[in-house]
Amino acid sequence: MSWEANVRKVVPYTPGEQPKEANIIKLNTNECPYPPAPEVRELLSSMKYENFRLYPDPCATKLIDAISDHYKVPSNQIFVGVGSDDVISMAFLTFFNSDKPILFPDITYSFYDVWADLYHIPYKRCPLDDNFRIVKEDYLKENGGIIFPNPNAPTGVLEDVSMIEDIISHNRESVVIIDEAYIDFGGKSVLPLIDKYDNLLVVQTFSKSRAMAGMRIGFAFGSKKLIKYLNDAKFSFNSYTMNMPSLELGAASVRDDEYFKKTCHMIMETRRRVKCELKSLGFSFPDSQANFIFAKHENISGQSLFCALKAAGIYVRHWNAPRIEDYLRISIGTDEQMDRLIAFLKDYLK
Amino acid sequence: MSWEANVRKVVPYTPGEQPKEANIIKLNTNECPYPPAPEVRELLSSMKYENFRLYPDPCATKLIDAISDHYKVPSNQIFVGVGSDDVISMAFLTFFNSDKPILFPDITYSFYDVWADLYHIPYKRCPLDDNFRIVKEDYLKENGGIIFPNPNAPTGVLEDVSMIEDIISHNRESVVIIDEAYIDFGGKSVLPLIDKYDNLLVVQTFSKSRAMAGMRIGFAFGSKKLIKYLNDAKFSFNSYTMNMPSLELGAASVRDDEYFKKTCHMIMETRRRVKCELKSLGFSFPDSQANFIFAKHENISGQSLFCALKAAGIYVRHWNAPRIEDYLRISIGTDEQMDRLIAFLKDYLK
Repeated sequence: MSWEANVRKVVPYTPGEQPKEANIIKLNTNECPYPPAPEVRELLSSMKYENFRLYPDPCATKLIDAISDHYKVPSNQIFVGVGSDDVISMAFLTFFNSDKPILFPDITYSFYDVWADLYHIPYKRCPLDDNFRIVKEDYLKENGGIIFPNPNAPTGVLEDVSMIEDIISHNRESVVIIDEAYIDFGGKSVLPLIDKYDNLLVVQTFSKSRAMAGMRIGFAFGSKKLIKYLNDAKFSFNSYTMNMPSLELGAASVRDDEYFKKTCHMIMETRRRVKCELKSLGFSFPDSQANFIFAKHENISGQSLFCALKAAGIYVRHWNAPRIEDYLRISIGTDEQMDRLIAFLKDYLK
Repeated sequence: MSWEANVRKVVPYTPGEQPKEANIIKLNTNECPYPPAPEVRELLSSMKYENFRLYPDPCATKLIDAISDHYKVPSNQIFVGVGSDDVISMAFLTFFNSDKPILFPDITYSFYDVWADLYHIPYKRCPLDDNFRIVKEDYLKENGGIIFPNPNAPTGVLEDVSMIEDIISHNRESVVIIDEAYIDFGGKSVLPLIDKYDNLLVVQTFSKSRAMAGMRIGFAFGSKKLIKYLNDAKFSFNSYTMNMPSLELGAASVRDDEYFKKTCHMIMETRRRVKCELKSLGFSFPDSQANFIFAKHENISGQSLFCALKAAGIYVRHWNAPRIEDYLRISIGTDEQMDRLIAFLKDYLK
């Protein structure tokens, strides 16, 4: 028998393309089109390379304190990790240890089932309705945990706080994770509910609205109890996950609220304008409250449009999956980038 | 029933202290006492903060190519991760899926059993002999995999290449991981053996000899097959683990070989001198080939010495564990730091 018999067999996953050519219009991974806050640049230029010889602070104190100050949440109710992927994966491992299935939408972020499989967690996908809305009743059944993004990805559909509170209040026996990766583009966070429900974990990220995808920073808010359990799990497996630049530059980013609000506003303005343009070109889409639009054209297949755009140097995201094969997920870029997209589509569709 | 019933119960782990006071002599986490290579400083000062808005290269091409150039190993035989903890944890998950126990020493790096428990991997600890040497015969029995550090931690004992090759050649049905975190301080790497044995994974780190603990960079060499399996597993769970500064600054560090050799040499020289001093003060220790010395005193208990040193602002590592409770693990610092350690011990022991 070869050693290969004991190798874990997985389906290799291809991440969204990171083209290296210049001039590509990259609207495929929901990155922020604007740079991080100016304070990030300043701190980067004064960072002491000598300190890199030391291990980073395993408690991530500077970063957690900065998040605490900004969001007015005590430090012991905040957890941080290497992107929200790391935070959510750790939450699955820590909280989802029931024999009952965890619940999440059929159309949603593509890593939930991966982590469930990894940790041997049973799960059940609840179909979104025809308008890509969450069907509340599906989440009032017995379960070992609940997770969904709000706004949902890749649809951009936002559910309101009262509906989510209804789900949480009917599920006090399992942990409910709301993945708010895209909440800063017009949505209302369920963050205030952590004071009322000790089983609610709210996850956010620096990768979208804070323009720091390259730094890998995610964070979560919850009751003291939830956060302590997460930290216990994390410290028992790997104490030093976030490196020094993440901790320092992440803190700098959070401190600059004015810039943050300005760039989020710019992206929402661009989104408003692009929605009008797309509609007039024959596209339809759910009303996105995220930094992307999930759109399909009345005549052209998703696959054809995806290929045509790519040939023109415009990268968007497309899934060959049931119910969404005719949709493209188009990230909101700069106004100039979106003008080039619209110009191409006008020409292509005429 | 409360949601807490389904929470993963772990033993919270306390990482080695990272004191914030100035003037502490920190010899407790085997960090390098010298700064990273000068090229790291240069690259840091020219790093473009604007790029942080983008996701990092999931393939870590720049870093892997730099490691490839330096070690003369093809890029497709190199895997990188967030510190060697991340690399080894991923290797456990990928390669150790047998019903037979994996084997590692009873006195060794403290996370091997943690990851085995995490991934439900059966394991068996093989006792080191009275001189803290690995007993080769223990590793010639049926197993689901083998891992040990060389030099071993916290003993610093180095086993020679031919003994390790003997173990590997008798275990072609399981993956053998040699954790070479401390190999650059006088040891001889088993790296050349990867061409001969497709089941050998050699893991190294930037945290010790490369003075980059704060950046979290680990790497591994193996056959094309082994590395492909590791990448498949990694990409299926989390594509973006290493952030941009790690990828860029890690590559810069590897390129400066002269500085690397110089600082390793300085640490070995300091170690040689400290060994003489400790011996003359009544300490005994295995012949360390790492950047630390694992020493016990003929008259004073490990616990007493640990406390006395700490009270004097000198942090070392001590474990209240069978067989090693009278030992202290003392990292090799600068000559000045070690002089202060020796001066304190002379005074304390007289």
